[in-house]
Amino acid sequence: MSDQPQLRPIGRIESPLRDLSDAPLQADEGAPAAWLVFDDALAEALKDLGPGDEALLLTWLDRADREVLSVHPRSDPNNPITGVFSTRSPDRPNPIGLHRVTITAREGNRLQVQALEALDGTPIIDVKAVLGAGDR
Amino acid sequence: MSDQPQLRPIGRIESPLRDLSDAPLQADEGAPAAWLVFDDALAEALKDLGPGDEALLLTWLDRADREVLSVHPRSDPNNPITGVFSTRSPDRPNPIGLHRVTITAREGNRLQVQALEALDGTPIIDVKAVLGAGDR
Repeated sequence: MSDQPQLRPIGRIESPLRDLSDAPLQADEGAPAAWLVFDDALAEALKDLGPGDEALLLTWLDRADREVLSVHPRSDPNNPITGVFSTRSPDRPNPIGLHRVTITAREGNRLQVQALEALDGTPIIDVKAVLGAGDR
Repeated sequence: MSDQPQLRPIGRIESPLRDLSDAPLQADEGAPAAWLVFDDALAEALKDLGPGDEALLLTWLDRADREVLSVHPRSDPNNPITGVFSTRSPDRPNPIGLHRVTITAREGNRLQVQALEALDGTPIIDVKAVLGAGDR
């Protein structure tokens, strides 16, 4: 249906994180370095990114639960149940991950980033320029 | 295909902006107020958002060109051709719009935001909490 937008993954995450139980909630909470591996057909879109650049990475959190509408934030039962649109829960109707990343290396169409909380194999769906100094 | 993630629009933009030629490039460049109209089935996810809240709004820019891989940033021919992943061009393989918004009013499952550069009818795909002070 034309009303159901179809995402086309543009690459995949390569990360030592293999399991949800190992993944930190945010990148600045001990996440490891990871590689963003892009489809070669998109080299032109990627050509101006390299070490030292910051970017906004969008991923498709394919292991999330799309039926969840409210959560205890940070999975802490002491936090009151909150609608997911007021949180950064991965569980939500469209489980898009938004990550501010710093690129540390480039090898062809592979970019290494400093710290990323997404799991190995997670599809990449977009990369954008940072506009605000505090984008996260 | 399981490898082709299917977005489910969660609502629509109501805006006086009807045409790409009228739309500013960024919200702080004269964009009008707009209403975010959410599906009633998602009321639980929306329940904690109200006037004064800031949020990150993700939209599906359904009038964008998905085949574009590089652009003159800001459509200015004086800017050198740049890969779209280093820009905020709406034209890109997965045309997801990322907007930092301030909510100014709420009526049921309709949220008014102060300024938005997205066109009338644009599908809404996600709303997230702001983490960084400068998220844009």
